[in-house]
Amino acid sequence: MTRTELIARIKETGSFLCVGLDTDLEKLPSHLGNDLAAMLAFNRAIIDATLPYCVSYKINSAFYEAYGSEGWQIMQETFDYIPDTHFKIADAKRGDIGNTSHRYAKAFFETIGADAVTVAPYMGEDSIRPFLEYGGKWTIVLGLTSNAGSANFQRLKLDSNKGGFSLVPNIVRGERGQQLYENVLETAAQWGSEKSLMFVIGATQASELENVRSIVPNHFLLVPGVGAQGGSLEEVARYGLNADCGLLVNASRAVIYASAGKEFAEAAASVALAYRTEMQEYLKAKMV
Amino acid sequence: MTRTELIARIKETGSFLCVGLDTDLEKLPSHLGNDLAAMLAFNRAIIDATLPYCVSYKINSAFYEAYGSEGWQIMQETFDYIPDTHFKIADAKRGDIGNTSHRYAKAFFETIGADAVTVAPYMGEDSIRPFLEYGGKWTIVLGLTSNAGSANFQRLKLDSNKGGFSLVPNIVRGERGQQLYENVLETAAQWGSEKSLMFVIGATQASELENVRSIVPNHFLLVPGVGAQGGSLEEVARYGLNADCGLLVNASRAVIYASAGKEFAEAAASVALAYRTEMQEYLKAKMV
Repeated sequence: MTRTELIARIKETGSFLCVGLDTDLEKLPSHLGNDLAAMLAFNRAIIDATLPYCVSYKINSAFYEAYGSEGWQIMQETFDYIPDTHFKIADAKRGDIGNTSHRYAKAFFETIGADAVTVAPYMGEDSIRPFLEYGGKWTIVLGLTSNAGSANFQRLKLDSNKGGFSLVPNIVRGERGQQLYENVLETAAQWGSEKSLMFVIGATQASELENVRSIVPNHFLLVPGVGAQGGSLEEVARYGLNADCGLLVNASRAVIYASAGKEFAEAAASVALAYRTEMQEYLKAKMV
Repeated sequence: MTRTELIARIKETGSFLCVGLDTDLEKLPSHLGNDLAAMLAFNRAIIDATLPYCVSYKINSAFYEAYGSEGWQIMQETFDYIPDTHFKIADAKRGDIGNTSHRYAKAFFETIGADAVTVAPYMGEDSIRPFLEYGGKWTIVLGLTSNAGSANFQRLKLDSNKGGFSLVPNIVRGERGQQLYENVLETAAQWGSEKSLMFVIGATQASELENVRSIVPNHFLLVPGVGAQGGSLEEVARYGLNADCGLLVNASRAVIYASAGKEFAEAAASVALAYRTEMQEYLKAKMV
């Protein structure tokens, strides 16, 4: 899916919601059972119910890999079930030397059929290039994540004399030394254009979005952490929306586990609809 | 496998070689064919031939994931084939928020049955803890990798006033500001002991090993990049060995693709034997 197509879909649906299929066997509605077949049935029901209210699905590979090759098969069938009207993200956070990253790109773009895959930046340019070089596909680089551990390394201050000097004037920070995640955004933005590269910016750090937008004003941001992790959609929209929307906001647990009863899919649809209703307002205000 | 058992195995075999099963269908000996069954047959033959000369096998998940769930099945059967005398590493470079990393730990420690898994540090402590908390298992954190891209972020200089101050006196660096990878080593070493935590340090950066040893003198280091990537075993041993050995040196392509003919397994054994012969000398010199 191209950037133009993605923006058109957001305008059509009035939503920039991404539904995260972090499906946990132990949280399935009891009437479905708790085996891998139930996991797939659950995913299909959630997809059917939420399709009108979201533009994207994000599947976290960890929840499927925990069950080995059979889990991978369920991940494959879940991806296969999502219609091409929706942007399909493999949340895999991969990254390795070039020769090896190329295999990961093949796994998620060709075998699984995702539109986008999340990647970790620690290993640098040649670990990310093989993803970026796939025509018609998207690479989503971890920038600032939603977890407490983001403080350990992502927020380390760089020496402004030794590589931490920013070419981007930063009105918010008011100084020249960068944090590591800012350097990651600025550096990776040189490797891929806004047509094939996005960044992960956690919603629990919404106050940082103004700063993020000063570094990457045009790139789409994938924003996890709304809902169960405590991020505020209103704040994310206020600081993160740009003229092309520029956001995909992910909600996982808040949507898919809205109810553990027989009406779980309807409950998920209600939560997704509520997100869309709120998103429509924000999009209108920004005249996207 | 405990640290004591691993050290005992190194002493018994006179080897700290890890054979990397980065198996590429397109590089299989032609008489085996080039399907997934051939991949497994190749792995088994390489394992049979190299068992006496190495103490560990490292399986890079990317080479298997490229083939989806069927590839995962081959990865599983390869792990299953490695005897418990050998230290089994899943080179997966995973890492996610705690809730999700826990699933990756389950995938590789329980389902796959690895002794150790490699993890990426960018997301910080709670992304690594779920691995460290698995009893009797090992977590191998990326420190300084063997690829060119390691220069992009791992070598960024930190502001010595803002978190980049090192408590470890560093005679080699001769100054107090850290590079990011040094901070990763120092910080992660506080999360896990030398009984359950290792670091990846690329052999192509062997000159840095003296510096690495000043920060983590006792931890085992997994050192990839010897052979095809150009790293020198002699340099790695000189700067990296400690009184307990403290090294697992990985060779992948140099061993497993030593020959593309019918005698590929014997050729792999010869290369592994040559590594062991060299390693025996270095171990003797250090009196391990």
